[in-house]
Amino acid sequence: MRTIGVGLIGTGFMGRCHTLAYRSVRAVFDTPLSPRLVQVCDRRADAARHHAERCGFEKSTDDWRVLVDDPDVDIVSITTPNKFHCDMALAALAAGKHVYCEKPLALTLDEAERMAAAATKAAGRTIVGYGYLCNPLYQHATGLVRSGAIGRPLFFRGVCDEDYQADPELPWSWRSAKAEAGLGVLGDMMCHLVSMADGLLGPIESVLADCRIHYATRPSGDGGERLAVENEDIASALVTFESGVTGMLSSSRAAWGRKNHLAWELHGDAGMLVQDQERMNELQIYRNEGPKSDQGFKTILAGPAHEPYGNFCPAPGHGLGFNDLKTIELANFLNAIADNAPAYPDFAAALRFERVIHAIARSGESGARVRADKTG
Amino acid sequence: MRTIGVGLIGTGFMGRCHTLAYRSVRAVFDTPLSPRLVQVCDRRADAARHHAERCGFEKSTDDWRVLVDDPDVDIVSITTPNKFHCDMALAALAAGKHVYCEKPLALTLDEAERMAAAATKAAGRTIVGYGYLCNPLYQHATGLVRSGAIGRPLFFRGVCDEDYQADPELPWSWRSAKAEAGLGVLGDMMCHLVSMADGLLGPIESVLADCRIHYATRPSGDGGERLAVENEDIASALVTFESGVTGMLSSSRAAWGRKNHLAWELHGDAGMLVQDQERMNELQIYRNEGPKSDQGFKTILAGPAHEPYGNFCPAPGHGLGFNDLKTIELANFLNAIADNAPAYPDFAAALRFERVIHAIARSGESGARVRADKTG
Amino acid sequence: MRTIGVGLIGTGFMGRCHTLAYRSVRAVFDTPLSPRLVQVCDRRADAARHHAERCGFEKSTDDWRVLVDDPDVDIVSITTPNKFHCDMALAALAAGKHVYCEKPLALTLDEAERMAAAATKAAGRTIVGYGYLCNPLYQHATGLVRSGAIGRPLFFRGVCDEDYQADPELPWSWRSAKAEAGLGVLGDMMCHLVSMADGLLGPIESVLADCRIHYATRPSGDGGERLAVENEDIASALVTFESGVTGMLSSSRAAWGRKNHLAWELHGDAGMLVQDQERMNELQIYRNEGPKSDQGFKTILAGPAHEPYGNFCPAPGHGLGFNDLKTIELANFLNAIADNAPAYPDFAAALRFERVIHAIARSGESGARVRADKTG
Amino acid sequence: MRTIGVGLIGTGFMGRCHTLAYRSVRAVFDTPLSPRLVQVCDRRADAARHHAERCGFEKSTDDWRVLVDDPDVDIVSITTPNKFHCDMALAALAAGKHVYCEKPLALTLDEAERMAAAATKAAGRTIVGYGYLCNPLYQHATGLVRSGAIGRPLFFRGVCDEDYQADPELPWSWRSAKAEAGLGVLGDMMCHLVSMADGLLGPIESVLADCRIHYATRPSGDGGERLAVENEDIASALVTFESGVTGMLSSSRAAWGRKNHLAWELHGDAGMLVQDQERMNELQIYRNEGPKSDQGFKTILAGPAHEPYGNFCPAPGHGLGFNDLKTIELANFLNAIADNAPAYPDFAAALRFERVIHAIARSGESGARVRADKTG
Repeated sequence: MRTIGVGLIGTGFMGRCHTLAYRSVRAVFDTPLSPRLVQVCDRRADAARHHAERCGFEKSTDDWRVLVDDPDVDIVSITTPNKFHCDMALAALAAGKHVYCEKPLALTLDEAERMAAAATKAAGRTIVGYGYLCNPLYQHATGLVRSGAIGRPLFFRGVCDEDYQADPELPWSWRSAKAEAGLGVLGDMMCHLVSMADGLLGPIESVLADCRIHYATRPSGDGGERLAVENEDIASALVTFESGVTGMLSSSRAAWGRKNHLAWELHGDAGMLVQDQERMNELQIYRNEGPKSDQGFKTILAGPAHEPYGNFCPAPGHGLGFNDLKTIELANFLNAIADNAPAYPDFAAALRFERVIHAIARSGESGARVRADKTG
Repeated sequence: MRTIGVGLIGTGFMGRCHTLAYRSVRAVFDTPLSPRLVQVCDRRADAARHHAERCGFEKSTDDWRVLVDDPDVDIVSITTPNKFHCDMALAALAAGKHVYCEKPLALTLDEAERMAAAATKAAGRTIVGYGYLCNPLYQHATGLVRSGAIGRPLFFRGVCDEDYQADPELPWSWRSAKAEAGLGVLGDMMCHLVSMADGLLGPIESVLADCRIHYATRPSGDGGERLAVENEDIASALVTFESGVTGMLSSSRAAWGRKNHLAWELHGDAGMLVQDQERMNELQIYRNEGPKSDQGFKTILAGPAHEPYGNFCPAPGHGLGFNDLKTIELANFLNAIADNAPAYPDFAAALRFERVIHAIARSGESGARVRADKTG
Repeated sequence: MRTIGVGLIGTGFMGRCHTLAYRSVRAVFDTPLSPRLVQVCDRRADAARHHAERCGFEKSTDDWRVLVDDPDVDIVSITTPNKFHCDMALAALAAGKHVYCEKPLALTLDEAERMAAAATKAAGRTIVGYGYLCNPLYQHATGLVRSGAIGRPLFFRGVCDEDYQADPELPWSWRSAKAEAGLGVLGDMMCHLVSMADGLLGPIESVLADCRIHYATRPSGDGGERLAVENEDIASALVTFESGVTGMLSSSRAAWGRKNHLAWELHGDAGMLVQDQERMNELQIYRNEGPKSDQGFKTILAGPAHEPYGNFCPAPGHGLGFNDLKTIELANFLNAIADNAPAYPDFAAALRFERVIHAIARSGESGARVRADKTG
Repeated sequence: MRTIGVGLIGTGFMGRCHTLAYRSVRAVFDTPLSPRLVQVCDRRADAARHHAERCGFEKSTDDWRVLVDDPDVDIVSITTPNKFHCDMALAALAAGKHVYCEKPLALTLDEAERMAAAATKAAGRTIVGYGYLCNPLYQHATGLVRSGAIGRPLFFRGVCDEDYQADPELPWSWRSAKAEAGLGVLGDMMCHLVSMADGLLGPIESVLADCRIHYATRPSGDGGERLAVENEDIASALVTFESGVTGMLSSSRAAWGRKNHLAWELHGDAGMLVQDQERMNELQIYRNEGPKSDQGFKTILAGPAHEPYGNFCPAPGHGLGFNDLKTIELANFLNAIADNAPAYPDFAAALRFERVIHAIARSGESGARVRADKTG
């Protein structure tokens, strides 16, 4: 069994999430590569040290360039705020590392383009953390579509709502600043929905959009004047796929009660599929077959019949969780590295998704239809 | 107790539905006017005669002008195909009758404008069959919005899907012809959604839309060549309300598995409301109040606390049905007539709704934003 | 077309409900008999008079014997409190009338036995108001069971919960008195569940039960001392059907949040059926067929494929309501009378259901298994 | 940071599950003890060796006594078939180890009694794998009950259904043999339900039960004669808690469509709680508060407000999975060991649960009420 050296940058939400995946993956999957936790980096040296001690990393640092240059590190996990992604990824690729980068790729589309271009030429493999693509029932849905279970696809509707910015009196944060966060809900959440639509139906060709800042200002945390919110709270788009399928996408970060309402429905000429990530272990399907009296939406519960659920649990209906999806994502990446094959979604695929969210932003400004393969 | 003479034109789906309402209304509501079933009209004289005998109408005819001119008829119910609405309604109003017309008002917006104009000058009252507005839980929702239960409204999402045209091999019918049916799904279904959005949030100001014919042709019923479908199967729109609220509306008549999925959600800055007519006796509300650990969407079941449910049943949760909404609609009309007050939605209100669907159709053609208060 | 004269005793919840059915039935069903509203009775003469005027009965009375003796009355509807059922039904049967009696048949099992015996010998037909049996999706479920859709039935679980007595401070009423109401939740609600189990699986043979009064006393309405509750709030039973199927039944009138939670599931060796009257337009089925990856519970929405839904509405999924079930019940009765055939459930069938609830009461007292076909 | 040596017996479903927990726990919880994977045992030496290599155990063995005697092993995880639990646990306790044993404790109640007695005198701590007790929303429910959120508890209904033995042609296995598996569905599943009822309401005092073998024989795997099923497929019981609350419990391993339907509802005099493990990230509550028009069941989604969800994910509604519950269970055990305090549920608590299932089995045989604190 070969080991593969891991370097993790960032110890926040996603940093812990990656750590958990690296520690869990071999208890779940018989991957050809076994992660060795080499080094962790956080700008706060003590946070890095604590994380290393607690989770079993051999070394810690407060300088990500040290980590990137560490010869024992083979994979670099980037889980920092978006504005650091580009520099880190470019450096890691230049150093010949494999890169596991959280979404979105970068702050701007220009950065993302550069990252994807670098990945094309690099020796290392890349993957981007669009973890919902790893939901076994989502994968099952893509298989059902390909097999014609719902006939010819006609129309797609998707929403991606949360309420983490729903409170109008929530203090202003870097998330509201263009220079810090880039896009608003588009970069945070809509990109997930785009990745799922793309996986079901192929690339989106053009968009006609409406983007709104509903809370123009927010209290400053320090009791001073209210500060301006610079990026969109809600974005909606009428879209056309290259295949001719049409659809609509909508995402809000101010949707009270929605916690991870990443939900879509795909209308085919012989049936329909419906999924909501808040009930991630369920998939609904309607098929126009059998007598009318017995037709209806069927709710499929995740189980071993939906790979790789069975690696987690041999009993159906017992439920995977959010973190399990990251473990699958990592296993996919380790397999790709071992096979010397592209992982999915690599930087090129992620760029395709993120061109769509930037196209939505531009269409929202112009009020005109925008092609997703154009960059500005 | 005063009686009021009823003349019914049409004995199909909606004709039977109106008949049921006329026969039931006094067993449910203590309306000041008691319907007397005077005359029924159908182009097939025997169908009219059979309906009269079976349901207790005194007379029958195959000439709707005879019915409109009958001095014993005070209310004219129009339940014929859309292309007849305008002539019938204008004649009935000219004859001084009250008019209970099924939606949409007419085949074209021009006709609808003329009908609304005539109604303004007429002695008789008008009402249009937007029956879902009578759902007690929908009415409760409008009250909750007005009372601030979900704070300031921000965003509206609504869909209206059915699958009655989902089968690509369903034979061509008059519904697919512009000259017979006018609009497609916009006139058949989207107008209901618009009526509900309007009731919750006030008028829609402008729309940016995408309309598609997904089944370009359909088999002719007689085995000849396939015939062209002339009106839209699916229509979606990004909308702006006069109040500044934004939203999106989408409707398909080719949505396998959806039977009456007239569903909407309204996002406020303090909560959310969600309703789906397929579960018409339920309303969901989320409010940002109390500890986070105990927040969640609450499902309210219809009951006597939601007027006029209690007129139908003193026990909550026992369920109203589709036809009950028409009984409420009729009771509203009878009360308006007795009070010599406008009913809701009268021709003027229905025109407001229908301007929106025609604006969606125009925007779908042009790809540009269209104001809903413009007519061409 | 023949008419049939109707006499209605009682103008409360169920009195209005019967009235609505009599007025509606011919607008929905092409029954061979057309109801003529002859006479209505209420102990309060003015209530009777008002009901007659409002709903179109020709006569009113405060003496039910006058109504029973009226030669124009062919059907007697009994919707009074349970303690009057026996005398009224016996008199009506003796007078040669058809009897449409609300459930439960009577205050005591002895009375119910006498009523069923009288019905056997009488010229008139009988039906008892177990309206949930008329739910088209329940009827569809019975057909699915018979056709083997879920294989050999093994096990049944049913509950029937409401919360109308859930408030411990709700004042004492006649419902809590044995002499007035007889059984508690068993007579009010459990009997419905028994009727549905019986329709799916045939007669229940024996029961082993637990019955509890959870609120021992209730405030008197007039501010005096608290009064004793004399009949059960909650009753549960382990049951065996004659067919060998086993099951459990449970019913509470103190179940906060449940409004009409008359819900059951039937386990077969090839599938399962699940229904809840709170979502009366839905039926769930699971069948062990096709690949495991695509199995799941399917939710069937009521539609024209489930007779007689189509009589109410040609569009599926639009929803029937509680009162519509009574209209179906009445149509069934009118058809039975016209065909000179037994209606279902007649007094004999209702007696079979009600023997079960009395067996549950006796088993609750003794703690031992009790046969349902024994009477004491 | 102190480490604690882990010895794992068994590498099947639960063996992998324990491994995953040991590897994950420190990435999720800041436990004072850090697991060191010392030794793994499987009767098949190569399976043990493979598991060790793959998951990072230092040693492997095919002799569980070697593992128990290993001085580097501090905790012994027992995940073997039930019939081995007793010997292993007694030996591990005698060797001064902490014991993490899967449920049920043992094959017979006598064994379980001996295990609990040994634990009382041992230096090591014990915990039994009733993992559903670790569901954050279940824990939240117990807190709500204690705080009076639903008032005085009155009545409990619980079911625990799966379909892993629903197929009548599934070959006979050791699970059907009393000598191998002991009880049937009672030991496999009902014990979970009992543990949850106990946590909400305290000990169950007595039971009145019905237990059935619905598939009397099963095909032998080798094509020979059908073999007898010796333990119950379905068990149901009317129960009384020591507190006076009553209830009913029911469990089937032959319930088509149910995958982990461990569902319960608790009726209080001011509200109700409802949970279903198939939707483990949801909890429903109804409270009799506020206007009737706005009452309803509220669906709470798991989030950081429900400890220790936040350790897994800072965002609510993203979902925990089945395996996460085992990680929580392990963290609880490590904390108890570090604190030198009892873990929950230890052998004594598990014995209390398992007395109930054996009481149900005895009552099922006798048809009479059986006290749960009696052992035979």
